[in-house]
Amino acid sequence: MSKPAPLNLHSDRLFPADPERRAVCRTLYERVKDLPIISPHGHTDPSWFAGNNNFSNPAELLIIPDHYVLRMLYSQGVSMEAMGIKPKDGGTYETDPRKVWQTFAAHYYLLAGTPSRMWFDHVLSEVFGVTDALCAQTADAIYDMIDAALKTDAFKPRALLDRFQIDLIATTEGALDDLRHHKAMIGSGYEHRVITTFRPDDVVDASNPDFAKNLQKLSDLTGCDTRDWAGYLKALLVRRKYFRDVGRATATDHGHPSARTADLSPAECQALLDVCLSGGASPEQCDLFCAQMLTEMAGMSLEDGMTLQIHPGSYRNHNPGLHDRFGRDKGADIPVAVNYTEALAPLLGKYGNEAGLNIILFTLDESNYARELAPLAGHYPCLTLGPPWWFHDSPQGMARFRDQVTETAGFYNTAGFNDDTRAFLSIPARHDVARRMDCVFLSGLVCAHQITMREAETILIDLTYTLARDAYKLPLPDITV
Amino acid sequence: MSKPAPLNLHSDRLFPADPERRAVCRTLYERVKDLPIISPHGHTDPSWFAGNNNFSNPAELLIIPDHYVLRMLYSQGVSMEAMGIKPKDGGTYETDPRKVWQTFAAHYYLLAGTPSRMWFDHVLSEVFGVTDALCAQTADAIYDMIDAALKTDAFKPRALLDRFQIDLIATTEGALDDLRHHKAMIGSGYEHRVITTFRPDDVVDASNPDFAKNLQKLSDLTGCDTRDWAGYLKALLVRRKYFRDVGRATATDHGHPSARTADLSPAECQALLDVCLSGGASPEQCDLFCAQMLTEMAGMSLEDGMTLQIHPGSYRNHNPGLHDRFGRDKGADIPVAVNYTEALAPLLGKYGNEAGLNIILFTLDESNYARELAPLAGHYPCLTLGPPWWFHDSPQGMARFRDQVTETAGFYNTAGFNDDTRAFLSIPARHDVARRMDCVFLSGLVCAHQITMREAETILIDLTYTLARDAYKLPLPDITV
Amino acid sequence: MSKPAPLNLHSDRLFPADPERRAVCRTLYERVKDLPIISPHGHTDPSWFAGNNNFSNPAELLIIPDHYVLRMLYSQGVSMEAMGIKPKDGGTYETDPRKVWQTFAAHYYLLAGTPSRMWFDHVLSEVFGVTDALCAQTADAIYDMIDAALKTDAFKPRALLDRFQIDLIATTEGALDDLRHHKAMIGSGYEHRVITTFRPDDVVDASNPDFAKNLQKLSDLTGCDTRDWAGYLKALLVRRKYFRDVGRATATDHGHPSARTADLSPAECQALLDVCLSGGASPEQCDLFCAQMLTEMAGMSLEDGMTLQIHPGSYRNHNPGLHDRFGRDKGADIPVAVNYTEALAPLLGKYGNEAGLNIILFTLDESNYARELAPLAGHYPCLTLGPPWWFHDSPQGMARFRDQVTETAGFYNTAGFNDDTRAFLSIPARHDVARRMDCVFLSGLVCAHQITMREAETILIDLTYTLARDAYKLPLPDITV
Repeated sequence: MSKPAPLNLHSDRLFPADPERRAVCRTLYERVKDLPIISPHGHTDPSWFAGNNNFSNPAELLIIPDHYVLRMLYSQGVSMEAMGIKPKDGGTYETDPRKVWQTFAAHYYLLAGTPSRMWFDHVLSEVFGVTDALCAQTADAIYDMIDAALKTDAFKPRALLDRFQIDLIATTEGALDDLRHHKAMIGSGYEHRVITTFRPDDVVDASNPDFAKNLQKLSDLTGCDTRDWAGYLKALLVRRKYFRDVGRATATDHGHPSARTADLSPAECQALLDVCLSGGASPEQCDLFCAQMLTEMAGMSLEDGMTLQIHPGSYRNHNPGLHDRFGRDKGADIPVAVNYTEALAPLLGKYGNEAGLNIILFTLDESNYARELAPLAGHYPCLTLGPPWWFHDSPQGMARFRDQVTETAGFYNTAGFNDDTRAFLSIPARHDVARRMDCVFLSGLVCAHQITMREAETILIDLTYTLARDAYKLPLPDITV
Repeated sequence: MSKPAPLNLHSDRLFPADPERRAVCRTLYERVKDLPIISPHGHTDPSWFAGNNNFSNPAELLIIPDHYVLRMLYSQGVSMEAMGIKPKDGGTYETDPRKVWQTFAAHYYLLAGTPSRMWFDHVLSEVFGVTDALCAQTADAIYDMIDAALKTDAFKPRALLDRFQIDLIATTEGALDDLRHHKAMIGSGYEHRVITTFRPDDVVDASNPDFAKNLQKLSDLTGCDTRDWAGYLKALLVRRKYFRDVGRATATDHGHPSARTADLSPAECQALLDVCLSGGASPEQCDLFCAQMLTEMAGMSLEDGMTLQIHPGSYRNHNPGLHDRFGRDKGADIPVAVNYTEALAPLLGKYGNEAGLNIILFTLDESNYARELAPLAGHYPCLTLGPPWWFHDSPQGMARFRDQVTETAGFYNTAGFNDDTRAFLSIPARHDVARRMDCVFLSGLVCAHQITMREAETILIDLTYTLARDAYKLPLPDITV
Repeated sequence: MSKPAPLNLHSDRLFPADPERRAVCRTLYERVKDLPIISPHGHTDPSWFAGNNNFSNPAELLIIPDHYVLRMLYSQGVSMEAMGIKPKDGGTYETDPRKVWQTFAAHYYLLAGTPSRMWFDHVLSEVFGVTDALCAQTADAIYDMIDAALKTDAFKPRALLDRFQIDLIATTEGALDDLRHHKAMIGSGYEHRVITTFRPDDVVDASNPDFAKNLQKLSDLTGCDTRDWAGYLKALLVRRKYFRDVGRATATDHGHPSARTADLSPAECQALLDVCLSGGASPEQCDLFCAQMLTEMAGMSLEDGMTLQIHPGSYRNHNPGLHDRFGRDKGADIPVAVNYTEALAPLLGKYGNEAGLNIILFTLDESNYARELAPLAGHYPCLTLGPPWWFHDSPQGMARFRDQVTETAGFYNTAGFNDDTRAFLSIPARHDVARRMDCVFLSGLVCAHQITMREAETILIDLTYTLARDAYKLPLPDITV
């Protein structure tokens, strides 16, 4: 058996080979590599930070919940069962986390060239101190090393939050959530570092079979009559306030199929709500309801100051067989083309000129970066562009974003970086990739003599920290050059 | 107060950092940096060149009419009023040009990474000799310097035309314009350097509330019965001839919402004209009328030799509140997705094989470069691709254009550079960016050993001069390597 | 007359100028430059390899059938007749191949920056030993040199197959083809190197005026009642078996207008077949029939193991006047926008989780690479992405493909390279470009420290050989690092 290859994170990783640009990157990166992390949008589990218990084992922490990993291995013929995913039909599946880990390690070569590979190598090396490259041969030793670490106090969630220098992290909860974990954190010293985000999809998506039931629950929670249009809106305002008060939420999030918005009269809205509650709404009516609700949510944001995030364009659960057997978030959400210019016109016609309103737009359809998103964000005071999302949260995805957005929207209509992840241990890796890629982009402008080095340093700190803080209105101090 | 940063236009700006490519760029750029400028499509005001009066002040010349600048500052919460834009509702606004300039200077950092920043630095440095970087601190001194220069003879429009080596510039006038300024130039020695372009949108866009009134004016001007389809077409031919005779026009320009074309029978056309004149046309009928008119205009171009330009895909006045208060061209035109392959089929089916016909296609939807535009222009003899337009008139916009177009359409199905601007003083800056980016692209082919240095030099001169001259059939001499 | 420029293929062509990346490229390229060629999808003429006769002359071999060349010259005003294309209306055309060659040579500069230029220079230099650059001045001498070579045994098809190290090449034949040339090769020693591909467009495209006639022929060939839905499907299975047995086919190919699929009931299918056979089908019905047939073909592939290729999104014969006079494949096929996520849902819902099924997706719409194709192929076990196709089979087309696909789909959900050409002599040139561009992409990952050199070498060999072999299930040996 040959000696395993070493795992070295090179200090110049992601930097260009050209010596002049690489030197600029090194200088810039020094300015931000140790800055604290702000994670204003993501999907970590608040119970981790409330309970502060040890994580279970390497596979359950690092592999089984990672839809990037599941999709890549599944695409190459590895079954969900072999990855430790329990089928709903009671079929057998791999319950030994070490075996799941071994399967992952044997297929690790599939991730070459993907961001998952970079994140994973970073986690192995920087979080756990692994020095051998992961492969079938090294799988067991690395498993043992991680498993042992996870049992220690130093690897409990709050300790990692401190070690990772995460000054603030936002989780995401549904509108009906009681926020018990955020409530439990009050007084712990962590309640201002772990905040929630209001995600009302379950009470806005009228195509959800549970829509009427969810509105009943909303009514029960708020005392408002959610069968009445005004009462329904009032109930949402009540829940938004609850999320702010109990979970320190500063933002809402909306995962609609498209960016469609509408601006109907109250009578039309009541009629639409009626048909949606009846269960007899057509797909078009459900879609119009969603569209109207984006505009309503913008109005509420203007009133209560919460930042509104729109994440459109994912065809959820594209693989019905897989969804039936294993449920959601298994890697089968596939993007579709989206338009923004026409879709957002009703909302922007109503609220677009409000400088006090913050709307952050995301996309999975990069053809919109230069065509629609940068022109929109470069004009409307209420609009900001979110960072490259999901499949595009990657070195080249970031390069394409800055390349296609900056010349029209500049830097200051963008919202800094979001990791948008449930993979807690990868957060430092993800922010590191973003910081490096911002250095790469800025080094291009510096070496082309478009901006000075001093300007680049200021912009870089803003991209790393200030823009995210301001886009999400987070109560955090200033950092300057 | 610290010493302000210097404003230096680096001689290698926009060139790659790699020494080998940079050296090739320097050599190539030497060949074209001093060539005369041809500006075959733009929006400067012909009264400047007819009257040759001094420009008023720095803000009115450089800031207030610049929709790129207005949009960026507006997107960051600066009001239109603060930028010196007069509201239609009689509200107050900043009337002191120095204060407008100060506001601009204080927000100049927002333009980092945009072409406006490059153009503006170029104007400050090369046109006015400014040596300090613009910021709040330097705003007043720079204002004074520019204001003083603008009062001198050396900064009158014709003197600048000479100094900028602009051998020809085309303005753009509506079909009903009397071309009084072009007429006034006859005999001045400038009439062959300042020509017009025929832009008939006001008598072609049936969705315009003034459409019937405009057709009445067209009838008055030409003596043709514009309620009759044949008479309407005849009237357009008469006006085209007027634009050629009085304004030396060699081209027409069309700003339709899409690239849709049609090929209807005369009877269908008459019926469509009737309904459009009645004021009762549906949006679809208005759109079909536009579509038919593109085909008609191609037929007229074949007859009278005028080059036809199509600029589709802008959603004009996307911000109705802003438009109501401040009017058009304030930065609120937003692109939408466009298709060309299906849209142009009727026109190309009729006239596509005419080598004597010149149609120049522009786009705001870059996803068409490689997919539709390069394949179309690389096949049809009548088609040429216009340079990257509007939001894409930028270093990376140009890089994407050449990257996505050249392998399918080559260089000789492209139309050279247009500045397409009303910002007269920025014209040398814009052409300089285009020349530099062509050097950058060609240096890539040279260093990859795809073409020789001698080929690159020939192509570069063609891109800088010959292709624009030929695409617009301009009566200008040859320049060769 | 000046000395002609030399024609030198530089050994570093297409490699980056940066010394560090260039050095990595050189090392990588050494590993694959001499590997055998697998050409699993293309359009060469099987009669060449069956008859093994000399090719006729330089123009008929290299110019007249090359739609890339025809389109570029036609776009610049060179007539089809001047290029030696015979008009159907009996008009005159150039019949002297030398004159066609001279016209081509005089316009060769138009190809600067296109892949055709690289392929052609490669053919001249490497296949024929030409040392002068092609231009009007050198046209005759080069013509004579090639013409003389073509008359020798060394330039017969089988000798070139050997010299080019083409271990396997697939031609493409229609479903009704008798495969006489493939049959004739049996026993020659070449029958396993020249195989066919089953392309059933003529019996699947119900918009074809000969559809009913073709189904009658299909019935005659198979003895199945093709008016009956089950009989029609059975007939297709019979022909697929014939293609495997007689032509060693391992794959099918489908050139539909879109990627639309359907999953109808047998009764609906029978009704649709009935209306299609009646000649009265609407465009929508024809399209639905195509859509259903993609799903049926996937089912047959699952049964008989043939790889299924989908090449959607070309608007065929966009120039009706040209098509009427000169027929198809003259450069007038133009891409349109396509979607995959929604279009493929019916097929993938039925067969998407079958790891034994190989479906290779191609696109002319690059906006799908990152948005839809990489996410689909990075999830579904049956999906693989074909290499950049047609207009995108070019250095920058390949760069965009890897740039936009790799981070989501990795390398192992792509299918290696296809030359997809009828231009037999250019096959080594095309594979060389692909190998070089894979080196360029991998050198970027190596120099950014994302993968090791050893990983790059393994991936490169897989991209060059193994992935193509496996995607098409070709009976060829292993090659490893």
